[in-house]
Amino acid sequence: MVVKSELKLIKSLHQKKYRTQHGLFIVEGLKAVEEVLNSNVKAYKVYAASQIRSKVSADSVSLISLRELQQMSGLTNPNGVLGVFYIPEPKEVLSKDWILVLDDIQDPGNMGTIIRLCDWFGIQHLVCSERTVDCYNPKVLQATMGSITRVNIVYEDLGDFLRSIRLPIFGSFMNGKPILELVLPKKGVLVMGNEGKGISKRVQELCNHTIAIPQYGQKTTESLNVATASAILLNEIRRC
Amino acid sequence: MVVKSELKLIKSLHQKKYRTQHGLFIVEGLKAVEEVLNSNVKAYKVYAASQIRSKVSADSVSLISLRELQQMSGLTNPNGVLGVFYIPEPKEVLSKDWILVLDDIQDPGNMGTIIRLCDWFGIQHLVCSERTVDCYNPKVLQATMGSITRVNIVYEDLGDFLRSIRLPIFGSFMNGKPILELVLPKKGVLVMGNEGKGISKRVQELCNHTIAIPQYGQKTTESLNVATASAILLNEIRRC
Repeated sequence: MVVKSELKLIKSLHQKKYRTQHGLFIVEGLKAVEEVLNSNVKAYKVYAASQIRSKVSADSVSLISLRELQQMSGLTNPNGVLGVFYIPEPKEVLSKDWILVLDDIQDPGNMGTIIRLCDWFGIQHLVCSERTVDCYNPKVLQATMGSITRVNIVYEDLGDFLRSIRLPIFGSFMNGKPILELVLPKKGVLVMGNEGKGISKRVQELCNHTIAIPQYGQKTTESLNVATASAILLNEIRRC
Repeated sequence: MVVKSELKLIKSLHQKKYRTQHGLFIVEGLKAVEEVLNSNVKAYKVYAASQIRSKVSADSVSLISLRELQQMSGLTNPNGVLGVFYIPEPKEVLSKDWILVLDDIQDPGNMGTIIRLCDWFGIQHLVCSERTVDCYNPKVLQATMGSITRVNIVYEDLGDFLRSIRLPIFGSFMNGKPILELVLPKKGVLVMGNEGKGISKRVQELCNHTIAIPQYGQKTTESLNVATASAILLNEIRRC
């Protein structure tokens, strides 16, 4: 049985405010929980329904009823395992390789996909503006598929960060320089902007280069989705 | 006022069965409806709420109450305009350029993103297995952003199609040949597989080449999302 205060605490973690206050976040589902358990992220508590409990590799797993799980879960159909983990301390952002910067990405699905892309392309540091969606948002976590444990995600003022970093800064713009015309350096900063508004004026002014993905179809007004564009640009960066 | 039989017809179009039966599909929202109106796709009927009616460029726009719109709409918050259009006849698939083939893509968001990518990269023909999600599914349409009118989408037996086409066939596989080691031809077929299972065995046997996106991070078991992988591969194709 889960005591009332514990239930209340865990339910509160669906909101960013309480995640920050308690320094904890929730992961749901056996596969995702196992991935986090096998990383450096410290577990606070892991709950599992009886039929699945033996499959969870945590040192201690609390038995939970389906009713209790439903109360804690953010999913319509909770799938038997829920882990609560300590939010890791962000590490120092090193300028040894390419760094990805996000300027106010709002959509949790995009954020999750981008974290997964960083993991795939070995981008170790992801620097986000303070208004970018929280990476411990449950919808983000659902889309990251465990990659969250392998990428150092930092939230800070992008003006301060970009002014302090000694790397060339490439901003992704619709009317930027076509990527095939650029010779990309071995390390640098790639900035991706908000879904609707693109890169903010403040951040634009700090970009040394503009970069764009050439369009081959009929010229339409639509841009590529920010996660899709990030995929193409990260692949281009790793090509060099 | 909308008569009852009309309301019933339109509501039925949220299901594939009735879209096929009536040869009609629904588009919601001013921007999306306008994009379809400005294409070769023929309108069956366009409905708009009074405050937005004057903005719609259709020859005839039926006035609709918010209550009626809510009954027709698949959205939680319908946004004033709903268009019903005739499903266009698929055109012949020509082997003059690259063709994208989808083997049982299930997720409407992925499908929508892939259609949008075809539009961006000027891929004119998208050939889908019969079990691929319907491209006129409202959730697919929400993700295509009007690109649906600029890509010829065909559903057919992939075995028949691939055996008949006289182009080299590249299948995307996790353990395929790294893309940087391949010299891609000016035209060919790119096959993308199902989100969970990849390319089916039947279709695998018809692929002449395997292709993969190199992973630069720690080797994890996760693959890239199929829409993200399509983005990278289509960009690589257009690079050549």
